[in-house]
Amino acid sequence: MLRYLTAGESHGRGLLAILDGFPAGLKIDEEFINAELQARQAGYGRGGRMKIESDRVEIWSGIRGGVSIGSPLGILIRNNDFKIDELPPVTAPRPGHADLAGAQKYGHRDIRNVLERASARETAARVALGAVTQLLLREFDIRVESWIEGLGGIMIGETSEEERMENLRSSLLNCPDPAAEKMMIELIDRVIRDGDSLGGIFRVEISGVPPGLGSYSQGDTRLDGSLASALMGIPAIKGVEIGPGFEMAHLSGSKVHDEIICTEDGFCRLTNRAGGIEGG
Amino acid sequence: MLRYLTAGESHGRGLLAILDGFPAGLKIDEEFINAELQARQAGYGRGGRMKIESDRVEIWSGIRGGVSIGSPLGILIRNNDFKIDELPPVTAPRPGHADLAGAQKYGHRDIRNVLERASARETAARVALGAVTQLLLREFDIRVESWIEGLGGIMIGETSEEERMENLRSSLLNCPDPAAEKMMIELIDRVIRDGDSLGGIFRVEISGVPPGLGSYSQGDTRLDGSLASALMGIPAIKGVEIGPGFEMAHLSGSKVHDEIICTEDGFCRLTNRAGGIEGG
Amino acid sequence: MLRYLTAGESHGRGLLAILDGFPAGLKIDEEFINAELQARQAGYGRGGRMKIESDRVEIWSGIRGGVSIGSPLGILIRNNDFKIDELPPVTAPRPGHADLAGAQKYGHRDIRNVLERASARETAARVALGAVTQLLLREFDIRVESWIEGLGGIMIGETSEEERMENLRSSLLNCPDPAAEKMMIELIDRVIRDGDSLGGIFRVEISGVPPGLGSYSQGDTRLDGSLASALMGIPAIKGVEIGPGFEMAHLSGSKVHDEIICTEDGFCRLTNRAGGIEGG
Amino acid sequence: MLRYLTAGESHGRGLLAILDGFPAGLKIDEEFINAELQARQAGYGRGGRMKIESDRVEIWSGIRGGVSIGSPLGILIRNNDFKIDELPPVTAPRPGHADLAGAQKYGHRDIRNVLERASARETAARVALGAVTQLLLREFDIRVESWIEGLGGIMIGETSEEERMENLRSSLLNCPDPAAEKMMIELIDRVIRDGDSLGGIFRVEISGVPPGLGSYSQGDTRLDGSLASALMGIPAIKGVEIGPGFEMAHLSGSKVHDEIICTEDGFCRLTNRAGGIEGG
Repeated sequence: MLRYLTAGESHGRGLLAILDGFPAGLKIDEEFINAELQARQAGYGRGGRMKIESDRVEIWSGIRGGVSIGSPLGILIRNNDFKIDELPPVTAPRPGHADLAGAQKYGHRDIRNVLERASARETAARVALGAVTQLLLREFDIRVESWIEGLGGIMIGETSEEERMENLRSSLLNCPDPAAEKMMIELIDRVIRDGDSLGGIFRVEISGVPPGLGSYSQGDTRLDGSLASALMGIPAIKGVEIGPGFEMAHLSGSKVHDEIICTEDGFCRLTNRAGGIEGG
Repeated sequence: MLRYLTAGESHGRGLLAILDGFPAGLKIDEEFINAELQARQAGYGRGGRMKIESDRVEIWSGIRGGVSIGSPLGILIRNNDFKIDELPPVTAPRPGHADLAGAQKYGHRDIRNVLERASARETAARVALGAVTQLLLREFDIRVESWIEGLGGIMIGETSEEERMENLRSSLLNCPDPAAEKMMIELIDRVIRDGDSLGGIFRVEISGVPPGLGSYSQGDTRLDGSLASALMGIPAIKGVEIGPGFEMAHLSGSKVHDEIICTEDGFCRLTNRAGGIEGG
Repeated sequence: MLRYLTAGESHGRGLLAILDGFPAGLKIDEEFINAELQARQAGYGRGGRMKIESDRVEIWSGIRGGVSIGSPLGILIRNNDFKIDELPPVTAPRPGHADLAGAQKYGHRDIRNVLERASARETAARVALGAVTQLLLREFDIRVESWIEGLGGIMIGETSEEERMENLRSSLLNCPDPAAEKMMIELIDRVIRDGDSLGGIFRVEISGVPPGLGSYSQGDTRLDGSLASALMGIPAIKGVEIGPGFEMAHLSGSKVHDEIICTEDGFCRLTNRAGGIEGG
Repeated sequence: MLRYLTAGESHGRGLLAILDGFPAGLKIDEEFINAELQARQAGYGRGGRMKIESDRVEIWSGIRGGVSIGSPLGILIRNNDFKIDELPPVTAPRPGHADLAGAQKYGHRDIRNVLERASARETAARVALGAVTQLLLREFDIRVESWIEGLGGIMIGETSEEERMENLRSSLLNCPDPAAEKMMIELIDRVIRDGDSLGGIFRVEISGVPPGLGSYSQGDTRLDGSLASALMGIPAIKGVEIGPGFEMAHLSGSKVHDEIICTEDGFCRLTNRAGGIEGG
């Protein structure tokens, strides 16, 4: 139903996004979108670039009086440091980036032509689109939550849902375990001193999803495949699991299924090992 | 360039697949396709269903005199046990399958209407399509290899490329490590006795791929996202990694990159931690 | 919601079609599909090829007990004269066909590799798909009718809806005007004697369509564009009009609009000059 | 290869367009794009709205130093009369527009929410995208020309190619026949006095197209279908012909084909009745 395209370079005039198929009659809460953009920029240890960005969304179309009218949403996020035409060329390709493959694909001598688009900056447009989409999902009581589960080898401990929500509110790292967060921050400080960076793991939980959104009809209609593609398509992500994922690869079938229980109120499950998706 | 659809139920007349966009002038080696279908059906401990299947492909269109002519390939695989209309209804949804969500989505009282399509049988059509596509990739010296890396917690040890190729030829489990395979077979025997099943991990290696197939232009043009979607869209797969994947989440950036080295013959790398994909 | 692919050559084993996204729970009336295939093959003056075809559909998947189950419909129409591998090469490209462009595109020396797919035979698969889709549209009381309006310069006169339906039942040419049909048949006889062929015009009328199926949101979401593409994509069609079409190009705006009238029962129009589509 | 989305309302902040898949290394001539936007706004008898628009394109992304870099082009055209939030509601649906169907589809009480997007203003974004695409086609010596063939029943006479080019340069109506243009202008004056509008016919000629761009492989891969869809998707267009189109429906096959002639230089044709497209 929804489709979108984004455009924009890291040091260009700004980022553009068009979202087609968004329904009419929905209040578009710009402050929520801006809060999501802020959350993307915050986070202990983020690079200096983040600090000069203070992204605010401008919605150029698709709304009237703050309410969606059914026509495509045109979204613009200005860059504070528009200087792409002045920046010097880059000639040394960095490993772990699109630099080399991009230069080979598009025939660039100046790798800046690659890295300006193949940049984490692009995800700001996707965050804005995601925030708009969350406004729609809320109408169906579908909630999206996310937190950090590990950083540089430090994994969080178990927390109850209440603890998690409480802790996330004051966390600098979107980490639900304060003890783990303390160690992560120390690790970040050390890594920054060394001029290095860190890998990590985050979890996304979506609640309130009705059954039957995906389909086993074709390989490309399965919801698990779409989610994997969306996540793997974020720069720097190298693995996607649904539920316990690779852990389940070491177990027998009887230990990874979620028994279906019939109650008076309908079906329910006591476990969620499938990550909420069975059969795609 | 290529697009496809498949159709067919587990106990229907057969499976159909249409592949559009396949180029003209390529010899279509039916025996290779049949060998791939056989490889899918073989494997120590496979269910009884596999034994009565002995799939052979019928190419109904898109070839003339055994050579592709540029029009869509129409592929048919007959079922040996076509009896879908006689089979009894199924009313108890199994966990770990599409049974419950499928019945809710399509309004089925008889869950057989779900499980006939949401069946591992459907992958036979994808194997046939994959085999045809391999014939095309071979023209560009792109080779696809695959083997088992773990089963029920038993992981393979390191092997050289020659050992691996040698061992795979005689392996019952497509496992490159004979010692691990012996333990895996014992585990399979025990699990079958217990009426249970097993999880596992397999690796796919594609060599000869030119740089620049994907693009960082949009989230949905990235090759890593497409691969993740294709793999996660296979029934029972719950996790996808590129390169060492989640292992890298515990490391610092300096340990996960593949240094780019300039030689007289061009660029090269001494490591492959990115799984061969940088920047999508 | 629906997507499809077709495959099959004129003298191949048969035609295949896969229709994905068809809903569950619909009785699939095979006799209606076969009747539509017969209607395609009948018609005074059809080529000899038509006579040896007596197409019957085989539905290989997507149904159980004659009712759709939500999984893709796999459709097969066998060719009675499967001999593609024995037929002699064709080296002279015919004007008005894909012969020359197809041979240039795909690098064929033998033009038979083109004309076997770029053949009117392919439309049998689309007729079968269209018939299946009509079964779905009927559930919403959407009816599709079609008749000939002109042939070789002979145009039909005005007829009432009752006359039209009455006349079409006994017409050899799907022509609602018996006097015009008589002249058309004489013209067909003469043209066959001369070894020539004839152009013509047909009309499609779809009734019961709810407002709002298309959208002005993007150029490619407009229903008028989709219909034009579907019709122009039929071999030999060189023009598509909606409503009076090109006639309206000679008139002033006040003469081509359909005044909107508010009645107690809702909106209505006394004219239909827009062909039922306003604003896409 | 190319895909795009547009956004923007008639009295919104402006129009946005994103074009993905545009290759790297092409000089983007903004003045050509602006000239095309001007050509859209000029034309004798255009409405008052056109006069206050003086569209200029801003390219926010996809270029560096005026040259395309392979990442998506983000295009912005500002509206000079941004006042959508202040404009009064519209309650009377106009015939011949999306007003009624749009209000029913999206549930609008205020029809302004429809007409702001379902407006000829939207075509400015498509003109900008078309101009950018022409810059790419020029690299392959593919030229797109267009002129008016009829207006309100007045048809142009025959002109040679030189006369046409000469006359178009000074024409107020993009009309190649000065005598016909004189009558058209008189008609326009009268129609404006009467508060009415006029239908017309225009021709698009594309030269230098290599054979084989489309394909007969599927109905939706045919170039004729794509062109028909693109044209019919422009507001107010109710008919599309390729070559003489409906005229050919009155003729026998021998009079509508373009004989293929083999010369030393390759194939050629003395006529172009097929509009340059055979077999899709």
